Amino acid sequence: MSLTKLSEPEITARLDVLPEWSQPGEEIQRTYRFADFVGAMAFVDRIADEAERVQHHPDILIRYSRVTLSLSTHDAGGITEKDFEFAHAADRMATASGCK
Amino acid sequence: MSLTKLSEPEITARLDVLPEWSQPGEEIQRTYRFADFVGAMAFVDRIADEAERVQHHPDILIRYSRVTLSLSTHDAGGITEKDFEFAHAADRMATASGCK
Repeated sequence: MSLTKLSEPEITARLDVLPEWSQPGEEIQRTYRFADFVGAMAFVDRIADEAERVQHHPDILIRYSRVTLSLSTHDAGGITEKDFEFAHAADRMATASGCK
Repeated sequence: MSLTKLSEPEITARLDVLPEWSQPGEEIQRTYRFADFVGAMAFVDRIADEAERVQHHPDILIRYSRVTLSLSTHDAGGITEKDFEFAHAADRMATASGCK
């Protein structure tokens, strides 16, 4: 998988198909809402398993029923294809975990 | 357990025996470091179980091998005894989880 830092137009094009994600800086970010803390943690555990599987680890903030993922690629000094692949995988896991 | 908001002197006295904790605002906070992401997640899962058991849920930020807990009591609008009880419990769990 490419670890080349994406350009702004490349990032914008990829965010167009991920409307729930934003780019608050040198990372892409989304906040998911679940029914409660237990639902949020079930999602976090899936995310953790995937992060280990692909060896790409988002920052994860848990605030009761909300989980915010922040993705960037430290080795590339910015946002890469790897972040978008993880974002798509996270969205699929969120749906399976009962994301509202 | 009391849900009365603690005064600043009361908070200071309690932080004296929790040297790793700070008070960056209307919350108390500590960052724990583990060997890796898997170690960090093992701690987070313990924290999650305890949070459900006592029905008091810290904000949890996971950044690879680091876990930051932020504690406040929303119902009291500030920091209460409940936050310090959780902080002590978290420190015990961190030691059991291999916190560096």
